[in-house]
Amino acid sequence: MPKADSFIQSFLMHRNVLGGVLDNLTDKDLDFHPWDGAFSTADLVWHMLSSTYTFASTAASGAIGERPEKPVFTSIDELKNAAREWTEKTVETIRSMSDEQFNVSIDTTKMIGRDVTAGQLLSIMRDHEIHHKGQLFVYARLCGAQKLPLFIHAG
Amino acid sequence: MPKADSFIQSFLMHRNVLGGVLDNLTDKDLDFHPWDGAFSTADLVWHMLSSTYTFASTAASGAIGERPEKPVFTSIDELKNAAREWTEKTVETIRSMSDEQFNVSIDTTKMIGRDVTAGQLLSIMRDHEIHHKGQLFVYARLCGAQKLPLFIHAG
Repeated sequence: MPKADSFIQSFLMHRNVLGGVLDNLTDKDLDFHPWDGAFSTADLVWHMLSSTYTFASTAASGAIGERPEKPVFTSIDELKNAAREWTEKTVETIRSMSDEQFNVSIDTTKMIGRDVTAGQLLSIMRDHEIHHKGQLFVYARLCGAQKLPLFIHAG
Repeated sequence: MPKADSFIQSFLMHRNVLGGVLDNLTDKDLDFHPWDGAFSTADLVWHMLSSTYTFASTAASGAIGERPEKPVFTSIDELKNAAREWTEKTVETIRSMSDEQFNVSIDTTKMIGRDVTAGQLLSIMRDHEIHHKGQLFVYARLCGAQKLPLFIHAG
């Protein structure tokens, strides 16, 4: 299996949980801030979508990619649509990578403080996604969610 | 590099962040429950330490390992000592594994609903650790933490 396909599979094990978490939320939860200065729920989800895409485009192009501009979210449905759109873009971007590209070193000092290979950057991207998804589970519980999915999507 | 050493390195990138999070907490935060029925802070940290060890011992022995019994934690220092102790045990357990053992299939249906190889189980263990560590960051902020470390330990 090409490295890109194998990585996409292991990334989607986590990204595919996001919809199940958002199903528990309602429009009033978008602006929920658990502490002063925290990301709101919408901010946190957008941080996941936009950072993951930026990591992926950096890995694929070999140079730090531009972070997409944050839209205004006025409903959970809009957030769910954004999740679908940016997941698709992220997957397409990773799918374009050859096995050789995974070993290319990238100048990512301005992004993460040191240089890494594209493959290592994708691994950090995946860890970053899991970290913030874990946080989103707590946000959802604090908003009253009762039926959260497992943290990992096996299918 | 042996697979075990490479995996230990990638696991410690996350486990080594735990101490820096706990440094932000005080004894009164041990029993903090962000919602009714939630893990307390002590429960959450013990869940990480004990699950990760159980995943590791299952991967190394080829059969589902016993989950260690939860001690009573009366101070953050006791929790920090437990973190050191169980990190050491977990690392020793993984270090005992040969490259071949990573490919051995294990009957883990009762643990995670399907059979996986020891290597795949360690990968799930690592994801599980990152997920709950992400949650612990939110707990710590809700307890008033101001100086949390990065989610990943690069050194």
